[in-house]
Parts: sequence; structure tokens; C-alpha cells
Amino acid sequence: MFGTVVDWRGSVAHELAPFLGRHGLGGFDPASVADAWRGLYQPSMEPIRRGEREWVRLSVLHRETLEIVLRRYDLDPARIPEAELADLARAWERLDPWPDSAPGLARLKTRFIIAPVSNGNIGLMVRLAKFGRLPWDMVAGAELTRSYKPQPQTYLGPADVLGLQPHETALVAAHNDDLLAARACGLKTVFICRPTEHGPAQITDLEAEHDWDIVAPDMLALAQRLGC
Amino acid sequence: MFGTVVDWRGSVAHELAPFLGRHGLGGFDPASVADAWRGLYQPSMEPIRRGEREWVRLSVLHRETLEIVLRRYDLDPARIPEAELADLARAWERLDPWPDSAPGLARLKTRFIIAPVSNGNIGLMVRLAKFGRLPWDMVAGAELTRSYKPQPQTYLGPADVLGLQPHETALVAAHNDDLLAARACGLKTVFICRPTEHGPAQITDLEAEHDWDIVAPDMLALAQRLGC
Repeated sequence: MFGTVVDWRGSVAHELAPFLGRHGLGGFDPASVADAWRGLYQPSMEPIRRGEREWVRLSVLHRETLEIVLRRYDLDPARIPEAELADLARAWERLDPWPDSAPGLARLKTRFIIAPVSNGNIGLMVRLAKFGRLPWDMVAGAELTRSYKPQPQTYLGPADVLGLQPHETALVAAHNDDLLAARACGLKTVFICRPTEHGPAQITDLEAEHDWDIVAPDMLALAQRLGC
Repeated sequence: MFGTVVDWRGSVAHELAPFLGRHGLGGFDPASVADAWRGLYQPSMEPIRRGEREWVRLSVLHRETLEIVLRRYDLDPARIPEAELADLARAWERLDPWPDSAPGLARLKTRFIIAPVSNGNIGLMVRLAKFGRLPWDMVAGAELTRSYKPQPQTYLGPADVLGLQPHETALVAAHNDDLLAARACGLKTVFICRPTEHGPAQITDLEAEHDWDIVAPDMLALAQRLGC
């Protein structure tokens, strides 16, 4: 979802810009602040993956990491109205899809069951889908297995509830490491290239790093390739 | 879902007719066999509600109750090819929506998050939605809470994952007992009338038996009433 289907960086930066201006941080590039916030994404899940913390929803982690990132910019979250903080944390529910995502998914949906396989919780995924008009057949969300990638159950859960074998499903992702973990679970793999997910200077995931089952430039090209 | 959104009786009867003909039961009314099969729906969940059996998916129960109902008609399921039995059990994935369901839901979806609150498992709900082009925002399914109505968590789970209070959600149902249980959990209640769910001689749920928050003749009328 994040990066593969939606442009989190541009969208979160767009929401951060007026907030930073209001709080005397107008001199900072909102995209850099978005990067800093997203930089806390993997670390925030780590204690849960290691079993040191009970599973909580990604929406909770987004709110916690927002406070951490604000402190890094010397902004005390306790001095910001609760409603404003809560709304900003929900910027992750208002992410613009890449232009090919919604039309590509609509075509894929004519032949396949399509669903996000994301660390995002159900509420977050549902609101993202409504915001971006993403026509998922199913939004099970991370509540389904209460796990975070690359834990195997994250990849195996969706196949299981559909009564399918892992090899009857495919993960579509813009991230080689995500696909590697999915392949280890037996899923088919599809690499989509999102060369500006991390901005114009992106150096990771610019190409398929393994022999994925399908490599496609975007979601529409994938639909075309699959005869949808 | 069953009865409120889709016509299970007519659809299952339609699938049963050729099966009964092939197996020497052509003299029986397929709708009566559908009624007998559906009659085992509530009893099949009872041991799970009482905690005497581990939660299993409704698809599993549909398969078990199919075998019971066939034996009642003196048909030995062991003498029927496995693929044929499995396909017939999946008749519950191919139920026609009432004519107002899909267009009504599409209109409701413009203002609300819409989701089935059903005893059906995720795979079953997803395939029903694809079959009937039901535009759900979320198909969490019974796996979400591993419970069966009228257990409270069945009604409270969807609100919880969306970060909503129960009173911010509503159950739309054609069944007064379902609405009574939802109201006890704090949900708003909407009664839709489906006077032929059980065929032309239906005597139950022909009208609202309590002061539900909204009573509407069908899903399109409900959408109209809610300004969608």
C-alpha cells in the first residue's frame, strides 16, 4: 500500500506544510519532515515483531511517531491542541494514489480478488480506500493476523481466509525486501516500480533485484500483462 | 447479508434443482430443500456460541449441514463425487442480491462506510460481493471476532476496528431479533422489509416489531431517506 499504491511522501508533506507554518517551522522542507516521520515506521513496529510489546494498530504508532518527530524539531506536542495533533496523525488516511493505481486496480478486479496486504489496520485501509477510490474486494487489515511484515502470517493470512494456497496468490509491491519475504512464504511475486516514492533522489528499489514472477512499470501495465 | 442483502432461498433452490434431478430427487421442491438446509444454520452455530466447539468458518458449517440435509432425503453424501458436493456447498457464495441491494449500497457508500455484519467468513463474503457486485468498503467477516450473532462482539467488532463508538454505527437488517441484539450493544438500528425471504408464505419479520431508528422498504429507500 504505502509506496506501491499511494504516494505517502507527497501527500503527508502536503498536510505537514500548513502545520509547520503555523508552528514556526515554515523554514523546513515538509517532504524532509515526512521522511523523518516515515523513518520511524519500521522502528516503531520492531518491539512488536520481537514480542516485547503487544500488537497495536498502525494508527496508534503513527500518532506516537508524530510526537517523536515533532520533538526532534523542538516542537513540544503537549503545547499543540489535541484535535490538531489527532488530525495530523490521520494524514496517513488521506494519501493520494499514484495515477495508475485506481484504474489499474479496477481492471485487475475484473479477473482477480484484490486486497491490500499492508501493515495498516482495517480502519486506516478503509479510509485510504475511500479517499483514493481504491476498489478493493477485501480490506482485512493487520487485525487479521495481528502481525507486521515480514512476519510470515502477514503474507499467509489473506490466502488462508480466502481458502487459497499461497502459490495461488501474489504480492504486488514496489519493494524488493517485501517480495523476498512473500516469496519465502510461497506467494507469487510482482514488482511494480515507484522510482519517486522517496523523492527525486531515490536510490532504493529502482529496479527488480530478483527474478520476480512479473515485473511491470505500473498497475495499468500489470493489468494489461494479465489480460484484464 | 443473508435475507437482508441477498435472496438465499431462491438462489440456493436454483443451484439445488439440477443436483436433485441428477440424484433421483427431482420430485422434491428445491425451495423446500433450501429451507431444510437453511434450517440447520442456527443449530450449526449453537455449539460454538456455547463454547462447546472451537470457532470454525461458516463455509465449513455449510458443508457439514449439506451432508446432514442430504441424508434426510435418503441420499448418502459418501456416494456423491467430492467435487460435486464441494461445489454445491459453495452455492452460498453465489446468491443473487435483491434488485435494490447493489444500487442502494452504491448510494449509501457515497456518505457512509458500508460493510457486511454477517456470520459469514471473509472468503464467503468476498465471493458473494464479487458475484453480486456489492460495493462494500470493508469485508472483515466473522474471522474478525470469531463469534456468531447474537454474541455482542459480532456487532461491536466492526465499530471497534473503525475507531467508532457503537452509536456511530448502524445495523441494517431484515430481522427483528438481529436488530434487538444490535441495539443491546448500542448500535443504531435500521429495519428493511424482505417479505419473501422465506417464500410467498412467510409469516416472520413482515414488519418492524420495535421502534427501530429507521424503517425503510428497501435499500434504495434507505439511501433516499439518508440523503444519499
